[in-house]
Amino acid sequence: MKILEKVRETIERFKMLFPGETVIVGVSGGADSVGLLYILTELKEYNLKLIVSHVNHGIRAEEGKRDAEFVEQIARKLNLPFELKNVDAIGFKKTSGLSLEEAARVLRYEFFKEVLKRYEAQKIATGHTLDDQAETIIMRFIRGSGALGLSGIPPVSEGYIVRPLIEIKKVEIKAYLQEKGIGWVEDSSNRLMDFTRNRIRHKLIPQLEKFNPRIKETIARSGEIIRAQEEFIRTEAQEQFPKVFQSTEEHELVGTIRTYKSLPEALRFALIRMAIEKVKGNLRQVSYKHILSIDRLLASEVPSGEIFLPQEVIIAKGYALFVVSRKSLLKQEFSYTIDSPGKWKFPLVEVEVEFTEISLSELPKDRFTGFFDAGLTGFPIEVRSFRPGDRFIPLGMKKFKKVKRFFIDEKVPRFLRRRIPIFTSKGEIMWIGGMRIDERFKLRGKRALEIKIIKPRW
Amino acid sequence: MKILEKVRETIERFKMLFPGETVIVGVSGGADSVGLLYILTELKEYNLKLIVSHVNHGIRAEEGKRDAEFVEQIARKLNLPFELKNVDAIGFKKTSGLSLEEAARVLRYEFFKEVLKRYEAQKIATGHTLDDQAETIIMRFIRGSGALGLSGIPPVSEGYIVRPLIEIKKVEIKAYLQEKGIGWVEDSSNRLMDFTRNRIRHKLIPQLEKFNPRIKETIARSGEIIRAQEEFIRTEAQEQFPKVFQSTEEHELVGTIRTYKSLPEALRFALIRMAIEKVKGNLRQVSYKHILSIDRLLASEVPSGEIFLPQEVIIAKGYALFVVSRKSLLKQEFSYTIDSPGKWKFPLVEVEVEFTEISLSELPKDRFTGFFDAGLTGFPIEVRSFRPGDRFIPLGMKKFKKVKRFFIDEKVPRFLRRRIPIFTSKGEIMWIGGMRIDERFKLRGKRALEIKIIKPRW
Repeated sequence: MKILEKVRETIERFKMLFPGETVIVGVSGGADSVGLLYILTELKEYNLKLIVSHVNHGIRAEEGKRDAEFVEQIARKLNLPFELKNVDAIGFKKTSGLSLEEAARVLRYEFFKEVLKRYEAQKIATGHTLDDQAETIIMRFIRGSGALGLSGIPPVSEGYIVRPLIEIKKVEIKAYLQEKGIGWVEDSSNRLMDFTRNRIRHKLIPQLEKFNPRIKETIARSGEIIRAQEEFIRTEAQEQFPKVFQSTEEHELVGTIRTYKSLPEALRFALIRMAIEKVKGNLRQVSYKHILSIDRLLASEVPSGEIFLPQEVIIAKGYALFVVSRKSLLKQEFSYTIDSPGKWKFPLVEVEVEFTEISLSELPKDRFTGFFDAGLTGFPIEVRSFRPGDRFIPLGMKKFKKVKRFFIDEKVPRFLRRRIPIFTSKGEIMWIGGMRIDERFKLRGKRALEIKIIKPRW
Repeated sequence: MKILEKVRETIERFKMLFPGETVIVGVSGGADSVGLLYILTELKEYNLKLIVSHVNHGIRAEEGKRDAEFVEQIARKLNLPFELKNVDAIGFKKTSGLSLEEAARVLRYEFFKEVLKRYEAQKIATGHTLDDQAETIIMRFIRGSGALGLSGIPPVSEGYIVRPLIEIKKVEIKAYLQEKGIGWVEDSSNRLMDFTRNRIRHKLIPQLEKFNPRIKETIARSGEIIRAQEEFIRTEAQEQFPKVFQSTEEHELVGTIRTYKSLPEALRFALIRMAIEKVKGNLRQVSYKHILSIDRLLASEVPSGEIFLPQEVIIAKGYALFVVSRKSLLKQEFSYTIDSPGKWKFPLVEVEVEFTEISLSELPKDRFTGFFDAGLTGFPIEVRSFRPGDRFIPLGMKKFKKVKRFFIDEKVPRFLRRRIPIFTSKGEIMWIGGMRIDERFKLRGKRALEIKIIKPRW
């Protein structure tokens, strides 16, 4: 039978299954997954232990029950274990904010992984076909969205979710089932769940087939080439990642513009996507358009600018640096009071304050340690973030300067300005932490107040 | 005016034009190219010298003349030089075997390059728009063909052909012309020339716009990302090329399977395309399908196999090697007669034959030099390619062996077997050139006939 040969080839090429493995087979009752199940039972040489698993999404009560019973019957007929879970996809859609299709998928895979653990199984097999592949690629092509974009559904994901039918057309599976006299159910919930996919399947693909009758194969193939490219570029980008980015806060990355600009476009695009994924947790709703506009900002001569992404993610450029972060992280303000010498550990700042004897000629060059005249500096000392209107007299100067102006002259990126701890004594700024001491508070004799900033955040 | 700003941005980003350059502007008379011409005259800061160039493809005699006159008038109005060429695209289509669209394009660019030289100009500008870009990408997406596939029309090709409107939509250009009261002609030959493109423009794109109203921008953007990936991978592949391939004949490459297999898929795909392009001269009619099946053959455990491409191009694998060549090159048979000592230079073989004195213990280890017993070897000596049925007694053996069997045992790829010169004396094989001497002709005394193969072909 030709279809078995083709599936075997796919399994071999992508190293999907190995003899003796236990495989959780996701069976909806539709032609694809029923076909998958029967085909796997026919691949005797693999000697697989199959576990039939079905998720009732609770979208159409009656029909859902019918489908579950149908799949259970198949399992019984094949003498295979049957695992069922009833879930509430509609409820989860509401609480999660996902689309119904996504919500259903998340719940489905959750259950399959649970069954995988329970049976100590090696693989989860799903019935995705070449039709699904083509539809997915077309959908992303049209949307211009998705990180891996045009590369479509991976034949293997997470190393253990396998799709042995990914190179088989739905018509082939139906023909196989019909020839064997095996029935299936039409899953109307599919049609309910994904409107766009259904329009693509029923309206657009027939249109495209007029241009190329083998459009599905063609598109699946181009997906394969693009997937290989993506993988290669991702591997290269992974190597460059630590050269461009460093982590400051958790879920925040600061990058160096110069290193970034020195890379080829393709790597830059990949690096942006990787950075966003780390900060945002995923790449949902991030499109080509975002990636390109971010790259244009970063690679251009413009010294500063900001780009906003969904989920409060922000990309900000400032002089030599840029940051991939969340709005909330960049807007954090703070103000803490220090009323005596000692170690002070606040949520966003950690400092050590002590009186010490030191002569002017001995002052160490560590910019994160400041020495102030003990006679002039009084408690309480406040350590706080920048406020509009702040002014001080920079060391060596005679007149007040706006801190904002000082930041601009020093080319401190706007997004880092709130991170710099400003120390005041009796309401007057004594130190732009790590940057410049105030003339008025500078060490004059030998007795100093020493402030050390531990773990600076910029 | 917003359109000028956008064009400026495109020109800057892709470094298309520099102040004071002389630019050949291809103007068909259609909205796009007329728009391009006017926009370029408006970009005063570039201070360009524009040369209006028009090609009459001779497809519709009357209309062609009207268009040429229309463009000439525009040039006169703008006080710019006008260059016209009448060509016979239909005739060239027939002789070249190209499609009418391709034939017309070849002739058009030929003329533009001619004008470029004549004016000592720096650039050729064409009026390709974002619409053309989207159409091209969709066309290739549907066909699955084309080397750069989904990356579309490059904003700059060959370093000097520039497309300043590649990010502008046709409707924007028409609006610009209407606002300025500038007319254009509808080029009906366009519609004649490219049937598929027109169907895509008028049937498919409106369909796609129902899914995504900004489909053209979306697709153009995905093309930009893919172009960057392609470029990056090509650069990497270029570095690997000499490690995998060596040239034997002109327009023939022999590759090492082991090195090839050690590379990531994406580089392998790119290397195959580059090799085919070198041998075939172009990548026309080479699709993803070819690339994938070639890679599967080469990367698989199968020891030998052949894949045929258009234009007689062949990819053949044999044990440790593979070749990208032309059928004719692999099928070449030869037979030459050597009737006395001396240097013999034949089209496919070059040898030096002389009598010499040498003792068995002194025999050098150069496999391309054979020593035969002078007493047993007689002229004429024939040097020829392998023939089915050939047999000889390999040195050290007692019985005849089929040469074909010998080749198989020695793992000589099938595609190289015809290249190995076989030397016969009086109809009997004395030497499988460079590989094994025949037992019957081996050197017994001191007087030898020495045959040296110069420039072996395998």
